[in-house]
Amino acid sequence: MIEHPSFAVEPWVLRETELNLDLLAQSESLFALANGHIGLRGNLDEGDPNGVPGTYLNGFHEVRPLPYAETAYGNPEAGETLLGVTDGKLVRLLVDDELFDVRYGELLEHERVLDFRAGVLRRRVHWRSPAGGEVRVTSTRIVSLAQRGVAAILYEVEPVHADARLVVQSELVANQDGQTAEGENDDPRAAARVTNSLVGEEHYEHDQLVLLVHRARNSGLRMSAAMDHEVEGPDGTSVDVEAATDAGRVTIAADIPRGGKLRILKYLAYGWSGHRSVTSVRAQVRGSIAEARHTGFDGLCTAQREVLDGFWARADVEIEGDTELQQAVRFCLFHVLQSGARAERRAIAAKGLTGAGYDGHAFWDTESFVLPVLTYTAPDAARDALRWRHSTLDLAVDRARQLGLGGAAFPWRTIAGRECSGYWPASTSAFHVNADIADAVVRYQAAADDAEFARTTGLDLLVATARLWRSVGHHDVGGGFRIDGVTGPDEYSAIADNNVYTNLMAKRNLVAAADAAEAHPQEAHALGVDTEETAAWRDAAADIVVPWDDRLGVHCQADNFTNHAIWDFARTPAEMYPLLLHAPYFDLYRKQVVKQADLVLALWACGDEFTPAEKQRNFEYYEALTVRDSSLSACAQSVVAAETGHLDLAYDYLGEAAFVDLHDLNHNTRDGLHMASLAGCWLALVCGLGGFRDHGGTIAFAPRLPEPIGHLCFRLGLRGRNLVVDVDAGEATYRLEAGEALGIVHHGQAVEVRPGEPLTRPIPPLPRRDRPRQPAGREPRRRIPDRPGPELGGG
Amino acid sequence: MIEHPSFAVEPWVLRETELNLDLLAQSESLFALANGHIGLRGNLDEGDPNGVPGTYLNGFHEVRPLPYAETAYGNPEAGETLLGVTDGKLVRLLVDDELFDVRYGELLEHERVLDFRAGVLRRRVHWRSPAGGEVRVTSTRIVSLAQRGVAAILYEVEPVHADARLVVQSELVANQDGQTAEGENDDPRAAARVTNSLVGEEHYEHDQLVLLVHRARNSGLRMSAAMDHEVEGPDGTSVDVEAATDAGRVTIAADIPRGGKLRILKYLAYGWSGHRSVTSVRAQVRGSIAEARHTGFDGLCTAQREVLDGFWARADVEIEGDTELQQAVRFCLFHVLQSGARAERRAIAAKGLTGAGYDGHAFWDTESFVLPVLTYTAPDAARDALRWRHSTLDLAVDRARQLGLGGAAFPWRTIAGRECSGYWPASTSAFHVNADIADAVVRYQAAADDAEFARTTGLDLLVATARLWRSVGHHDVGGGFRIDGVTGPDEYSAIADNNVYTNLMAKRNLVAAADAAEAHPQEAHALGVDTEETAAWRDAAADIVVPWDDRLGVHCQADNFTNHAIWDFARTPAEMYPLLLHAPYFDLYRKQVVKQADLVLALWACGDEFTPAEKQRNFEYYEALTVRDSSLSACAQSVVAAETGHLDLAYDYLGEAAFVDLHDLNHNTRDGLHMASLAGCWLALVCGLGGFRDHGGTIAFAPRLPEPIGHLCFRLGLRGRNLVVDVDAGEATYRLEAGEALGIVHHGQAVEVRPGEPLTRPIPPLPRRDRPRQPAGREPRRRIPDRPGPELGGG
Repeated sequence: MIEHPSFAVEPWVLRETELNLDLLAQSESLFALANGHIGLRGNLDEGDPNGVPGTYLNGFHEVRPLPYAETAYGNPEAGETLLGVTDGKLVRLLVDDELFDVRYGELLEHERVLDFRAGVLRRRVHWRSPAGGEVRVTSTRIVSLAQRGVAAILYEVEPVHADARLVVQSELVANQDGQTAEGENDDPRAAARVTNSLVGEEHYEHDQLVLLVHRARNSGLRMSAAMDHEVEGPDGTSVDVEAATDAGRVTIAADIPRGGKLRILKYLAYGWSGHRSVTSVRAQVRGSIAEARHTGFDGLCTAQREVLDGFWARADVEIEGDTELQQAVRFCLFHVLQSGARAERRAIAAKGLTGAGYDGHAFWDTESFVLPVLTYTAPDAARDALRWRHSTLDLAVDRARQLGLGGAAFPWRTIAGRECSGYWPASTSAFHVNADIADAVVRYQAAADDAEFARTTGLDLLVATARLWRSVGHHDVGGGFRIDGVTGPDEYSAIADNNVYTNLMAKRNLVAAADAAEAHPQEAHALGVDTEETAAWRDAAADIVVPWDDRLGVHCQADNFTNHAIWDFARTPAEMYPLLLHAPYFDLYRKQVVKQADLVLALWACGDEFTPAEKQRNFEYYEALTVRDSSLSACAQSVVAAETGHLDLAYDYLGEAAFVDLHDLNHNTRDGLHMASLAGCWLALVCGLGGFRDHGGTIAFAPRLPEPIGHLCFRLGLRGRNLVVDVDAGEATYRLEAGEALGIVHHGQAVEVRPGEPLTRPIPPLPRRDRPRQPAGREPRRRIPDRPGPELGGG
Repeated sequence: MIEHPSFAVEPWVLRETELNLDLLAQSESLFALANGHIGLRGNLDEGDPNGVPGTYLNGFHEVRPLPYAETAYGNPEAGETLLGVTDGKLVRLLVDDELFDVRYGELLEHERVLDFRAGVLRRRVHWRSPAGGEVRVTSTRIVSLAQRGVAAILYEVEPVHADARLVVQSELVANQDGQTAEGENDDPRAAARVTNSLVGEEHYEHDQLVLLVHRARNSGLRMSAAMDHEVEGPDGTSVDVEAATDAGRVTIAADIPRGGKLRILKYLAYGWSGHRSVTSVRAQVRGSIAEARHTGFDGLCTAQREVLDGFWARADVEIEGDTELQQAVRFCLFHVLQSGARAERRAIAAKGLTGAGYDGHAFWDTESFVLPVLTYTAPDAARDALRWRHSTLDLAVDRARQLGLGGAAFPWRTIAGRECSGYWPASTSAFHVNADIADAVVRYQAAADDAEFARTTGLDLLVATARLWRSVGHHDVGGGFRIDGVTGPDEYSAIADNNVYTNLMAKRNLVAAADAAEAHPQEAHALGVDTEETAAWRDAAADIVVPWDDRLGVHCQADNFTNHAIWDFARTPAEMYPLLLHAPYFDLYRKQVVKQADLVLALWACGDEFTPAEKQRNFEYYEALTVRDSSLSACAQSVVAAETGHLDLAYDYLGEAAFVDLHDLNHNTRDGLHMASLAGCWLALVCGLGGFRDHGGTIAFAPRLPEPIGHLCFRLGLRGRNLVVDVDAGEATYRLEAGEALGIVHHGQAVEVRPGEPLTRPIPPLPRRDRPRQPAGREPRRRIPDRPGPELGGG
């Protein structure tokens, strides 16, 4: 865990003022830069020391065989693993023959700043070498949101007190060691070890440019990386260029007088392809480098600021009364944007491009947590992520056929669309991912009013997923439509009958597909959909089974769930969590213990299917069983806690979602950031405290603030309009800056917001309710009330 | 499948009169010799051609890592695999420089005879070499039931028509190739590939003796094999002896005149140990060889006959009206005896020692199918098998602790006691193996009246297994004792709640443990059992949940089972069976499709828990769902078919159990014989047609014969007495040869059988019932009624 105050609390930057080598790997994840295509972990420029070196290209993966102790039909034979690619971040420095390494000599000053508005990582170092030479090093690193194949580093060195002989080695290195964490192999959440997977295909140098082309050994994917340089130093500065199969090096040597400066501008370009030739991939990267040099570093930074200004104008969330949370929500939004901004038909992985945890796989996290945020803040990124799913539809149809099912069965974890999980009870059987995709489709279509998407990508996805449900489920003799033997969101239960979340989401999927087919009769006909099929979807949806325990007056997470023994929480010591590392699945599955919101997630995601009283009862019942061993849980619990009037609890869970990585709450931030939880911070604020819901396309709010937060302002992009919601203790104000009037619901009351006419409505009082109990030792951290103090300036 | 009539139908031998190379691997399993300690597959003496060469020592295994695509707590890290050991069966022959190989030249005559009374494998060959030289070769192979470390081969060669130069090479070879079947790696039922696992530790020769000592590379187990020879040939016969690390060879060269004979007697001895030194293991084997030579070949054969005469006197089953079945039941009993006769605290594996299928593992098959037969026919072997389980109790206690449970969790598949399954939903969660062991304990104790066993081994096992159940199950709010999330016998369902078979067997286990503890208060006290604990066991047993579907009027195999979709049998073509190779587990688990008797097995094993009407309804319902993809199923279906009055159907299933290997019905006899199904032949005859039950120690019969069988006679060893039951169409006669009178039940009526006073009782008429239906295409083969013909003589 990262103890406060490793980072200064400032509203627009993450600032580190001290270097803690024990937290290096974590900080590399936090300071990662990405644009959805390229990801650079926040490794120190000089490469060493490092926690986990990492440079990634979205979708560039290796294939590895998946082993099984016992074979079985339908087990995926091969998995995909995100590869660490050629590292171009490296800028090594020698000061008077002494290698700059923060572990030696003295680090007199250290600062790293991740700037959420500028979209750069700045570093400032004052170092005294073991021999006594002193230098100031500053670097600014950027991964361009405007030019997706481009990154750049401005690296400056100034001698302090005395002249210095400086050598800078700017490198491009393939097949680096240590790209997966050592000794973590027993943690199923870490990455698989894949080494030396890049096979050199071409290397060349030209002037100060080096370009390398590699192929991944088994997957055959081809990538290229190039670096080019602009060097400013005194006369006599020499530049030497070398290229070999796995390394390129540009060596700059200069004698810099006291007060002088060596300035090196390094442009990086990346590209990859599964089909294109060496020539073509090389040309693409060569072109990107040329464009970057043409734009120039200042030009890249200006464009970056413009992209981000646009984003924050649509997306910013302002919080009064909790400066740490204010910083966190911007940190979260910044990283969520980075994960998907330029993914362009590639996946948004669970870790974004900040680390290789979970093998770089994308899960349902994307559609259920990340896309709801992007849909309302960066809708093009949401659309592109859904297009990525659509691009894997053929594989999903094949998988469904292999499983004996109709429609498409999207993978539980994947990079390129193949199922990559070797443990089917927690993957293949978790069919809800299909309904989650359908839900994201419906949400995006409604929010973005994207008719073209709805007619093509959206319809295809809805039809294929609806067909899956119709074949997975069946009518029982009582007329109920059952979905048996599947796994819901709670990974501490599996292979259960009639998981409520799954059934309700499937219901919504079926209805949405029928609606879409009826809205696009020609396109639906081309897909072979007829009125019999849409009727069958609607019938199944209408007849869906939703298990209820009459005795307890709560819904059963799945059939029989509430008959199971309750996990012996009293006898479970703190060190047994997360339980998955210390208890067998068999025991977890058959007991009432919930890893992550499941029925509670249904209360939020399918909130229109429950009465307020049911929500109250259900939330209290499942709170007592939920251990939050997944980072996907806190935000959902926060949202439902807020809806059921437990605002303090909502605030605590919000904190967990917001600080999952800033405080390394799950002890694995080193493997990459928890993108769904970062998105969950926004969700907990907007859907939780803001009470935002979009069931059936109706835009509803029920805002209410916990005591520490005096004011909350959030924004939603809705059908081209920008709705700004200001909330304080007593009232909420809705503003539309332009566009047509918008009908919304405020605390159950339909109102209309007209552009330029802020609409203020009072917030009804909240009846006092007892705080629900959690399993012993698994209560959320109470958020420390804000101490009054001077407001810190922006970065 | 092996088509009839590959083998002649004779009552006391299995005779092969033609060599079919395509069926070589199958025939090697059928003609295997074993004594429970040593197993020799029926490979041809000369080693080539072969299907799967195999020489096994019970318990001698290698350890191999078990791989997982995704790690999880509690997964066994290493598995055990039966190793093919040093092969001493090899006797190669050269005739006038021509290697004797049945694939070349002409095989003028071929016969192999497995003799169930003599306990030997005889071979007779008349071969013409490609060069025209002719020889008659006869061999007799024995694996001694009297001297467990000893085997022997009498090998004789006679030139025909002309003098011949003969060379015989008698070999001892370690690390032979091809000991697991090639290209069968995708079948989870085959063996893992483990090669070159034997590390030579010592080899030496002395006179005509060669002895090799090896160690298994990873497990460290040590074994030794030795061969010694007695050669009878004309003057000038030379004998050459060589020994090396992995091979010993004794080469005999002789010029044999027409009408003369070269006679070689080869003694083999085997031993292994997990602890003892090279010296000690060597001495043991050296001693066995000496003892064998001292006894002589004739002496070994005489002792063999004596052991078998004793066995058949206690165990023989006589059938009139079906000579093929008559042969089969003796074949079955012979192999069941061979699997366990001298196992002596080693496991009885699923394949016995006839092949390395299932990695040589023992399953619940032992206690639930093999031991019920041995208990009544060779009780010492049953006792020793249970002592083997007891010897692994510490490991089972450790496993339970690892799983967070009390008592002992015996492994699903193992050689030395460690759980060796890498797929927990079909292994760890199949806890019923513990109740099956307890049931076998109770049965053995009652049948053998073994007070010493009951006080020690039996009590320990009953207490440890009862403790497991008390911790696996829990009381729900309604007061029912539930066992959730476990897997019953039907491997096409898993992780279900309240599997009826499991619950009822657990109930019996709990009561038996409480009874045993009360019968042995001191010993129970030493195990920490107090009256609170026994009361808790009895409470749980009394409150056990048994799910019932009121609508259908049948028991649910487990909670919710009858609500699941019924497998679409109509659309399942024949080539999809066995389903496990062609459908994903997820789909099998969530549908009504039964791999093997489960609820139906409960109707038999826990028959005292069901009314006759329930048995009728249940049997009919589950018949329509049972595909019999397991060889454990047919016998149970036969027994319950007989009990519910479907005698023709019982007869058909009896045939499937009886001929599983003789006709290679499951297409994997090459990997070894299906010991449980062979035992199942006896069970189908005795418990099925004989209606024998031993619930609660009461000996009950309800005999009834299907039309083709005119007369059935079977024997049971009961508390030192031998009960002979003769059944024909109208009546049954019970005879005790000696001992005290015995109270039994005949068709529900209590009667007493007195020694020397045969008791005859009429068989009540059977109401006519419609034959239950099976899934389309999965009906049992109809047994072809016996054709009248001359009675064949014994072998």
